[in-house]
Amino acid sequence: MASGRVLVYGGKGALGSACVKLFKSKNYWVASIDLSPNEEADANIVVKPAASWTDQEQEVSTRVAETLGDDKVDAILCVAGGWAGGNAASKELITSADNMWKQSVWTSVIASSLAARHLKTGGVLTLPGAQPSLGGTPGMIGYGLAKAAVHQLVKSLGQDNSGMPPDSIAVAILPVTLDTPMNRKWMAQADFSTWTPLEFVAELFAKWTGGVERPPSGSLVQLITKDSKTELVLAP
Amino acid sequence: MASGRVLVYGGKGALGSACVKLFKSKNYWVASIDLSPNEEADANIVVKPAASWTDQEQEVSTRVAETLGDDKVDAILCVAGGWAGGNAASKELITSADNMWKQSVWTSVIASSLAARHLKTGGVLTLPGAQPSLGGTPGMIGYGLAKAAVHQLVKSLGQDNSGMPPDSIAVAILPVTLDTPMNRKWMAQADFSTWTPLEFVAELFAKWTGGVERPPSGSLVQLITKDSKTELVLAP
Repeated sequence: MASGRVLVYGGKGALGSACVKLFKSKNYWVASIDLSPNEEADANIVVKPAASWTDQEQEVSTRVAETLGDDKVDAILCVAGGWAGGNAASKELITSADNMWKQSVWTSVIASSLAARHLKTGGVLTLPGAQPSLGGTPGMIGYGLAKAAVHQLVKSLGQDNSGMPPDSIAVAILPVTLDTPMNRKWMAQADFSTWTPLEFVAELFAKWTGGVERPPSGSLVQLITKDSKTELVLAP
Repeated sequence: MASGRVLVYGGKGALGSACVKLFKSKNYWVASIDLSPNEEADANIVVKPAASWTDQEQEVSTRVAETLGDDKVDAILCVAGGWAGGNAASKELITSADNMWKQSVWTSVIASSLAARHLKTGGVLTLPGAQPSLGGTPGMIGYGLAKAAVHQLVKSLGQDNSGMPPDSIAVAILPVTLDTPMNRKWMAQADFSTWTPLEFVAELFAKWTGGVERPPSGSLVQLITKDSKTELVLAP
């Protein structure tokens, strides 16, 4: 019998794949939502990039409802997202802001809607924030404002009458830099000992899902990595 | 000769119309950007609701460039926006979040791009925030996260290398409730002495545009109204 059920939104990405692998190793039933299937997952909800947010939500929510039936899940881990730079004078400002909004905010709000419907009493929803977005991010304006929207969404979900199931928590993780193959490729000269390993994040999610050391709902959990050790620091 | 030039983004709305009227009374040349023309403005950039953010930006930026030519403006006042409620369990969650994003975030980011191109050295950009969005807003999730995105955008614009012109400022106003005809209609039993008059906001913009009592760039200026008196309180 499975330890529980988990949905990974962005389950084919670097962090998503680490989550699928870890939860599978802990005997969870795992479904992945992504643009392409993750072969390690028990179920795959493969979505097309949609023209509109409502179309995207319609597709994801219909497919998730078909996949889960009446079963509730222990956790919804939204780890979708990307990165783009550009300041206000950039010719690409709107294009990059639009992409960041779709990759981080569409997915996070859809994940919140899924949580209201399919998460167990006492379940866990995690959303993808970003530590730099607690302040201004003049060199990556679209990225920064999309992540700030996710942060405020988590604060809303953590309050009474948010629509979340009883005793569940909604938490954002705020990494500085995740240690992904893409980041190693593009920032090959960086100090990797300040990057947060994907396995650390996946283990953290597994702990919270198992009811261990859960932060209060609505928390913004900064992941501060130094000398290859990661500390959790709640943002004010 | 005109006192200066001002662009009002959302110039046909309640607050926008108050701004057009006040700046006209102070002898400014005023252009309005909105879905319908403001007859009091010197120039109108009437835009269609666009299918995509990039299409909207293309239309607005082309039309503004045609209207201004090589003239720079003293202020860009973005007062576009709307309101919608709904928590995570709402069937309308995505539709309302999508509308709030288009009304507040599309316009604010496009206004920032216009500022990078058309604002004078030492000019003023104001964006429309919301005081409740400094915390969680569980009963109005889409509204809250869109306004939080605008707040973080202002923080970005207030920092070095944001693409804003030299010595210009970017500021968000964070009202609790504006005293508009629509709000009086829908909240007829409320205490209007805690609502911020539109004329107060327009006068505030005129002061800042004239170089008087400007807050630091990147400020989130809360408008706290009690007994019909409004105090400005910078958010931390």
